[in-house]
Amino acid sequence: MNIYADNAATTKMSRAAIDAMLPCMEEVFGNPSTLYQTGQRAKEVIEQAREDIAEIINASPKEITFTSGGSEADNQAIRSGAMIGKKQGKMHIISTAFEHHAVLHTLKRLEEEGFDVTLLDVHENGIVTPEEVDAAIRDDTCLVTIMTANNEIGTIQPIREIGAVCRKRGVLFHTDAVQAVGHIHIDVEKDNIDMLSASAHKFHGPKGAGFLYAKKGIRLTNIIDGGAQERGKRAGTENVPAIAGMAAALKEAAANMDSNADKLTSMRNKLIEGLNEIPHSALNGDEQHRLPGNVNFCFEGIEGESILLLLDDKGIQASSGSACTSGSLDPSHVLLAIGRVHDVAHGSLRLTLGEDITEEQVDYIIKSVKETVEYLRSFSPVWKELCEGKRKFIL
Amino acid sequence: MNIYADNAATTKMSRAAIDAMLPCMEEVFGNPSTLYQTGQRAKEVIEQAREDIAEIINASPKEITFTSGGSEADNQAIRSGAMIGKKQGKMHIISTAFEHHAVLHTLKRLEEEGFDVTLLDVHENGIVTPEEVDAAIRDDTCLVTIMTANNEIGTIQPIREIGAVCRKRGVLFHTDAVQAVGHIHIDVEKDNIDMLSASAHKFHGPKGAGFLYAKKGIRLTNIIDGGAQERGKRAGTENVPAIAGMAAALKEAAANMDSNADKLTSMRNKLIEGLNEIPHSALNGDEQHRLPGNVNFCFEGIEGESILLLLDDKGIQASSGSACTSGSLDPSHVLLAIGRVHDVAHGSLRLTLGEDITEEQVDYIIKSVKETVEYLRSFSPVWKELCEGKRKFIL
Repeated sequence: MNIYADNAATTKMSRAAIDAMLPCMEEVFGNPSTLYQTGQRAKEVIEQAREDIAEIINASPKEITFTSGGSEADNQAIRSGAMIGKKQGKMHIISTAFEHHAVLHTLKRLEEEGFDVTLLDVHENGIVTPEEVDAAIRDDTCLVTIMTANNEIGTIQPIREIGAVCRKRGVLFHTDAVQAVGHIHIDVEKDNIDMLSASAHKFHGPKGAGFLYAKKGIRLTNIIDGGAQERGKRAGTENVPAIAGMAAALKEAAANMDSNADKLTSMRNKLIEGLNEIPHSALNGDEQHRLPGNVNFCFEGIEGESILLLLDDKGIQASSGSACTSGSLDPSHVLLAIGRVHDVAHGSLRLTLGEDITEEQVDYIIKSVKETVEYLRSFSPVWKELCEGKRKFIL
Repeated sequence: MNIYADNAATTKMSRAAIDAMLPCMEEVFGNPSTLYQTGQRAKEVIEQAREDIAEIINASPKEITFTSGGSEADNQAIRSGAMIGKKQGKMHIISTAFEHHAVLHTLKRLEEEGFDVTLLDVHENGIVTPEEVDAAIRDDTCLVTIMTANNEIGTIQPIREIGAVCRKRGVLFHTDAVQAVGHIHIDVEKDNIDMLSASAHKFHGPKGAGFLYAKKGIRLTNIIDGGAQERGKRAGTENVPAIAGMAAALKEAAANMDSNADKLTSMRNKLIEGLNEIPHSALNGDEQHRLPGNVNFCFEGIEGESILLLLDDKGIQASSGSACTSGSLDPSHVLLAIGRVHDVAHGSLRLTLGEDITEEQVDYIIKSVKETVEYLRSFSPVWKELCEGKRKFIL
């Protein structure tokens, strides 16, 4: 059996996305900034994509800026919010301790440039409350940036309520919605969102494409200076095929969102139920307020990396956290943020299901994870100490 | 007849590039940062691409950082050079007046941040001399950034000699080689280059991919902060298909470089000869030291935009200058930099030939441009005044 269960890291491109890209790779190859027909056809492709994407999140096309991906969009949104604040003498930014590194590292850079950053603690269930955001806002706060759904534990934040607090207090609100767009409903108007980042390859679109929504009137700061593309806010020849592929993938994801979510939620719950049978294990993050396809567990007494390699041998492709930091030996900052201690955080497993998952596959995953955890524990010195009472069980 | 003669704006993807991308879009879709096999296969693809590209410019793979394109690479190179200088108290940068906007606008931002920028004048032939660079270097100069080949007039700079001057004077040397890579030989060692920017879609690779060469020991500053991809210097999931396509395109371009250049040079010279027959016209930039496929003319008494639209009707796709600024009504800063006055600079035409160009097509272009210029002049009030002696001919 071969089961790809790391859809939070990247997704396989949909046929619709590939089919939308191919003509732009082969025929509609012109530079959209040119006047002749080949160029104008390319221009039409990206403007149609902009309209399609805007409609899905209830924005207007002019509010959409195409980027090379989610990280670039995060960088640009946060830097823009910061620069708007700086001009008004407001240099305080609020975020959370469990954001993606594209957010956290950008904030670190801004701290070096003199900004003051408050990282809110996250509750054990992986959720931040609007009240906490409200309490953290100061007179000099210019920006709140809180992710819609966490990339590791999949917990969904009360974005609409947080946005309402920000609006009431006159503070810009950005949300890294990289894991959410295409998977759960987002309406930038109703959800009180000022800026939003998204990435195509998280919803079966191509790598190398993303977008930044910025509400009309928000002046963006360039991350890439140069040509006048994207109304002067993002230089560089537009990646026409990838933009077309992104729009096609998002249209498909939006059209099937409810049925996909229903199916995935049921599969996810079945998987959680199965893994809960493993002794001294625990689901990370709230059981209800999480992405339809996200399951993230900690197993005491073992190492996440070993689980992954053994599961790979069994044909199951999973992750122990964010793909972006897999080279690191540090435990996940997300799991630490929700209060997992180092030892436990090391033994984490993230399974993010795709829409084509079957019940049979979920059964196979449960069986394989159970076997793997049991096997690894059988020669784990830590597990031995736990069983002998030399260490205390935490989970 | 349908002739695409705007290869400096973008090129049609080669079959080799498309064929290299497709498997990465369909099957090798994993995130290269993941440990399981699908991810590791993607990782192998990008590392093989890195090796292939490095070899072609005589760099080592670790010196290649993948970016979303040439503009991003330019931004990152220049910002990196500036930050290295700042740490040493050196805040003077040398460039030229006819660089691409990705360079000029980045320099403008750095000026706002306190850097001092000298833009060297360009000679009438579109070339900057090493002596002028040498004379402009000061004790506080940290970076020289001069393009290898100009994007509008195609003139090739004496990069090797400029690099030698910089090395002698202990100043970092970056070259925007977006128009040159894949078209003329570049050897970063022999050419004394410290940093180099390139863009895949200028050599029949995909849009949305480029690379930055930075000599070992040069500490890059991130443009995009976040995940640990590209040794922590460029965050965001790698665009695996585009990187594979870029390498395939560059390999093909490198393998055929000499024969392509021979053919293009001969076609270019034929085209120049033909257009020179038009009265009161002039080639922009040096006739010899220019890219094999680049022809750029000024025609007195007419507007560049009108030529383009009429040529498009005749099936010829050309440009009046940089694609990145086509929305602007200002005359080309490149043509102004080589001393063309406003009126003349407005009547420019850039024809950048592709490797599949035929003699018959060149004849057709010559005939079409002649007819078009004559037609436009027939009702141009400026041309009337020139002919009546009310204005003086410049060309």
